Amino acid sequence: MSRDPRYDILFEPVRIGPVTTKNRFYQVPHCNGMGYRDPTAQAAMRAIKADGGWGVVCTEQVEIHPTGDIGPFIELRNWSDQDVPALARIAEAIHARGALAGLQLAHNGMNAPNLTSREIPFGPTDLPVFSIFNDPVQARAMDKADIKALRHWHRAAALRAKRAEYDLTYVYAGKLFGGAMFFLSRRFNDRTDEYGGSLENRCRLLKELIEDTKDAVGDTMAVACRISVDELMGEEGIHAAEARDIIGHLAELPDLWDLTLSSWDNDSQTSRFAEEAYQEPFVTGIKRLTTKPVVGVGRFTSPDTMVRMVRQGILDLIGAARPSIADPYLPKKIEEGRPEDIRECIGCNICVSGDHTMSPIRCTQNPSMGEEWRRGWHPEAIRARETEAKVLVIGAGPAGLEAAMMLGRRGYEVALAEATRHLGGRLVAERRLPGLAAWGRVVDYRLGQIEKTANVSVYRESPLSAEDVLGFGFDHVVIATGARWRRDGVGRRLQKPIPVAPGARVMNPDDLLAGLRPESGPVVIFDDDHYYMGGVLAELLAREGREVALVTPSGEASSWMEMTMEQHRVQARLLEIGVTIVPHRLVTAVAADHVTLACVYTGRTEPRPAATTVMVTARLPENVLAKALEARRPEWADAGLASVTVIGDALAPGTIAAAVWSGRRYAEELDAPPRGLDDLPFLREVAELAAGPLPWRAGA
Amino acid sequence: MSRDPRYDILFEPVRIGPVTTKNRFYQVPHCNGMGYRDPTAQAAMRAIKADGGWGVVCTEQVEIHPTGDIGPFIELRNWSDQDVPALARIAEAIHARGALAGLQLAHNGMNAPNLTSREIPFGPTDLPVFSIFNDPVQARAMDKADIKALRHWHRAAALRAKRAEYDLTYVYAGKLFGGAMFFLSRRFNDRTDEYGGSLENRCRLLKELIEDTKDAVGDTMAVACRISVDELMGEEGIHAAEARDIIGHLAELPDLWDLTLSSWDNDSQTSRFAEEAYQEPFVTGIKRLTTKPVVGVGRFTSPDTMVRMVRQGILDLIGAARPSIADPYLPKKIEEGRPEDIRECIGCNICVSGDHTMSPIRCTQNPSMGEEWRRGWHPEAIRARETEAKVLVIGAGPAGLEAAMMLGRRGYEVALAEATRHLGGRLVAERRLPGLAAWGRVVDYRLGQIEKTANVSVYRESPLSAEDVLGFGFDHVVIATGARWRRDGVGRRLQKPIPVAPGARVMNPDDLLAGLRPESGPVVIFDDDHYYMGGVLAELLAREGREVALVTPSGEASSWMEMTMEQHRVQARLLEIGVTIVPHRLVTAVAADHVTLACVYTGRTEPRPAATTVMVTARLPENVLAKALEARRPEWADAGLASVTVIGDALAPGTIAAAVWSGRRYAEELDAPPRGLDDLPFLREVAELAAGPLPWRAGA
Repeated sequence: MSRDPRYDILFEPVRIGPVTTKNRFYQVPHCNGMGYRDPTAQAAMRAIKADGGWGVVCTEQVEIHPTGDIGPFIELRNWSDQDVPALARIAEAIHARGALAGLQLAHNGMNAPNLTSREIPFGPTDLPVFSIFNDPVQARAMDKADIKALRHWHRAAALRAKRAEYDLTYVYAGKLFGGAMFFLSRRFNDRTDEYGGSLENRCRLLKELIEDTKDAVGDTMAVACRISVDELMGEEGIHAAEARDIIGHLAELPDLWDLTLSSWDNDSQTSRFAEEAYQEPFVTGIKRLTTKPVVGVGRFTSPDTMVRMVRQGILDLIGAARPSIADPYLPKKIEEGRPEDIRECIGCNICVSGDHTMSPIRCTQNPSMGEEWRRGWHPEAIRARETEAKVLVIGAGPAGLEAAMMLGRRGYEVALAEATRHLGGRLVAERRLPGLAAWGRVVDYRLGQIEKTANVSVYRESPLSAEDVLGFGFDHVVIATGARWRRDGVGRRLQKPIPVAPGARVMNPDDLLAGLRPESGPVVIFDDDHYYMGGVLAELLAREGREVALVTPSGEASSWMEMTMEQHRVQARLLEIGVTIVPHRLVTAVAADHVTLACVYTGRTEPRPAATTVMVTARLPENVLAKALEARRPEWADAGLASVTVIGDALAPGTIAAAVWSGRRYAEELDAPPRGLDDLPFLREVAELAAGPLPWRAGA
Repeated sequence: MSRDPRYDILFEPVRIGPVTTKNRFYQVPHCNGMGYRDPTAQAAMRAIKADGGWGVVCTEQVEIHPTGDIGPFIELRNWSDQDVPALARIAEAIHARGALAGLQLAHNGMNAPNLTSREIPFGPTDLPVFSIFNDPVQARAMDKADIKALRHWHRAAALRAKRAEYDLTYVYAGKLFGGAMFFLSRRFNDRTDEYGGSLENRCRLLKELIEDTKDAVGDTMAVACRISVDELMGEEGIHAAEARDIIGHLAELPDLWDLTLSSWDNDSQTSRFAEEAYQEPFVTGIKRLTTKPVVGVGRFTSPDTMVRMVRQGILDLIGAARPSIADPYLPKKIEEGRPEDIRECIGCNICVSGDHTMSPIRCTQNPSMGEEWRRGWHPEAIRARETEAKVLVIGAGPAGLEAAMMLGRRGYEVALAEATRHLGGRLVAERRLPGLAAWGRVVDYRLGQIEKTANVSVYRESPLSAEDVLGFGFDHVVIATGARWRRDGVGRRLQKPIPVAPGARVMNPDDLLAGLRPESGPVVIFDDDHYYMGGVLAELLAREGREVALVTPSGEASSWMEMTMEQHRVQARLLEIGVTIVPHRLVTAVAADHVTLACVYTGRTEPRPAATTVMVTARLPENVLAKALEARRPEWADAGLASVTVIGDALAPGTIAAAVWSGRRYAEELDAPPRGLDDLPFLREVAELAAGPLPWRAGA
């Protein structure tokens, strides 16, 4: 197929200072939890995106000096020559696949607690560091020598980026990560010298850094400025009008403007809270302030929306972090006239949790994310089958769909059997929960692909017994039967069931997802799961007019969603619709008209009225069929059955991302050479030991 | 001096299986935030302890396989041969200083969320992982093949430890880190096979692992078992009687029993909540169950207590993690007959925060901790002065005391001038706060050392002006004048002052530390600092009978103390003494009889009665003198003044640990060759890039 001409505009080259990108697809800098620890894994991940057609592929923010050390988060470092080989490897990998390589220099200023370096953080003003963990560290106001030093380090880092052969670099003043933003901000900048006060003064450091960078490397490298166009906190923060004044003031100085909202949680909102192109109102009109190209984001997955952004003069370059994670081949699919093959980002921010848990980035839609080098997985390609084996996949949830799709792509003959009428497993119901509609893309994408794959047959309403399975003659059986929610309160804090009095009504999420509802009276949701389910069910029931209390042993509702940057939005929404959040409490007993709550600190108990208690605590694998087949293992050989493998939630309940990954793993490993117990499942890099003799001194 | 004979018993050799430790000082395994990332830094840190006289020096827990990957925490790995060089470097460094090297093998089982490896965690039962962050990951019940695999991996890891030349290794069943503990536990182990049910069955996996390890390496290596003697949760957990049954059952199997409380927060209690030897009741009598040597801990810093532990037959070996961090030379100081030189652990758990923030371990008492290789610092030794310079240190708080002490050790002539009668700076008053008495050791140790240093003179009640300083003729001036608490509410969440109505009473911690007290009526403490001060002042005032509400924008009181494992104890204590904790609220205005609180989620405001508001938010450097001297810089040369340097809280308010470190840094760097802007302040190791060509595949 060839490209739809209405998308031609997306494939126009754009000049960015001294370099030219071949098209308008621009992978903006994004964190990935690999950073300095896993440079080759990152190189492979970025190379895949370049191969997928992105004109520009950037690194995450890269620390330029130990005075701006944002550990514990693991980003790339560009502190000294010691870092250049890793940086160069990434640029080389991007170039080898035909994209421009961008490196986002960053000195995080007073966002950096400097836990590794122990240097004093610095910013415009003497204030506590503005870090996630409330580290007991204060920044000091920079003096002129500090500013000189910072400029020196930034310049030196830009020169190292050039030596590492990047095409584009950044001056970062966005998201309260780029330290220059604290100078722009009236609330952080109390200075009375030429770096504080007027807008011109507050812009001075940023201006100098851009000028320095252009002077150092601007002959061959583009210099972008990443800046926040709104902090969404009204007059107190940097707001739309002020951002425009700032950009207007520096209009022609950088070669590119990269627009963000601040802070990160505003910039990368999930589908539960924001639609595609949600940044449009904030970036519209910026282009009138500058002749330089402008890139912006908004979880763009629709080529029509992208075209509109360009045609309406809102953006020159279509920025993407998450959509490029979910589908590194998004540009190529548009170019090849098959936009229906785009694996659209579902906006769940599991990717962000990688950075927040300092672990390699993963993606619900793209299970190869982070595994490109580690396991040799590719988002699109998979090696052809090695045998004529026939595979039966049982269960059409996220794990089963992924396994069937990728086995199909390998060329195996696959039957996908689903017990119910509906394909999608847990997502059949979960996608109907408030705000989770876009999660259904996990199902839709895979069904769309499977429909086009002649060698995959789908059987609905086909519950199977072990007897059935043994009678079919498949070579391999994959059990992806999912999980069910527990009803007994066992979860993270309680390993033994909660006593329930006769006549007490207890429900679980499966009941609610099946359409059942509590009888009248107050509802207590006991959330010892801490991800989305407790909060979203509270929202569902409250919107239906129920009196809902969310009881949690954590301090916050849906507390793990700190990792996806949604927790504060969940809690705000619940409070606004009248849900009572009861933190730091366990449910320790359920009676007919109340529950007993126990304080997690003191053990003190108190009753709370409850006509119905909903237990959102943990799940159990649905493994009846797996066990039945296991019990009949002696019959396998006669039935022609070589293997039975349990995947996804049926093996161990987890995230949807984990289920998809599990399905992918099965498809990757079928007919692969068996791995011995001593073989590790993935590649990694370890620290290169310093040359001896060790320089520590003799004893006291 | 020679050793006091009553301590001779501590220097007796003890046989541990096939090896013999030269004395009873045993550095038990402890985390350090360096792990696989910083192996040479760890090697140097452990070597210093060996040099300081510890008979056995252990690593932290070392992951044996990616199925037990406890990221984001950074511990050593022993996954494969790729790890052996780093492990061997550490053992070699320990051996070079004359100690036995121990390596704690660990498969964390269902404590490990496997965020890096993405493998399914496993344990005795299908349950959510028991991890700190409530990761949305469930473990699966191990089947027989899993148990076989685990045993294989453990054995293989032991063999690698042997190749790395360790003398001692572990089977870990403690603290809910060592995975075998979940099998021991009735609440986690619901199995009906031979690995569940009876005590014998629950012990089976642990027994097999010990047997395997002895079989694999026991000919030359000692095999220790680290086990929890109580979980402090009554009958629900592993309790004293049950632990004794377990140890009795396996009594002679390991070569050594290493006793801990569970979980880690119980094992490593701070001085605020527990005294030296607080584990005595839990470990007394264990020795009667076994002929094998027994090691236990209890923040031992007193040689008399240590002797008592041995003489009373409670312990054979004096285990220490924190005391060995605070003073790596503790054994040598006892041996050399100078126990008064011991730098006693203050029990603040700042060391633990290193592991929890994935950053190199630091110590309030021992600023060289973590810097042994990075910066070449040593806990005791420092190079001799290079010049005849005279140094004036102004301010006798933690930073000034450390600077003066270490400058004195270098041989400089030092004057330490303190404005008040009292030496210790912030600690003069803070050590009198509830539970913080042991923190005074920071002062006492340094004063004790300074008293013995003829070239350091101390001047109390000596407030100095710039005029004074310029008149004295010192070559170098060090300003360590500390910080003062803000009174305006500016802190982490609010960068602008909180409006205060006329007549409203506002205090700050300095007022309370100076002995002032609120007038009658309810007190609101606004804690936007999140470390200990807000909570400890609430405790102080509540114990004095005041009605206290602690208002915090966090979900918990003293929320950063999660990092020191104290938060839950602080909150429990506050609740028990009647403090009202008001989470998720900012104080946005102070009136004469109330404050206005705003919800951090919704912005909704509400009044709260307050006769007095105590602002615990942030501090400001006390830098008047520094600024006055800076203003007179042209006069320095004539006054013979070569440098003025601000250190500690006067530079940037932080922890006491940071202040001591700052003082040490000054002492280390005086007269050192100047560092250029391009020179990094410390050494580090970076990932060794995998050999190319990169194996990722071509595009779709």
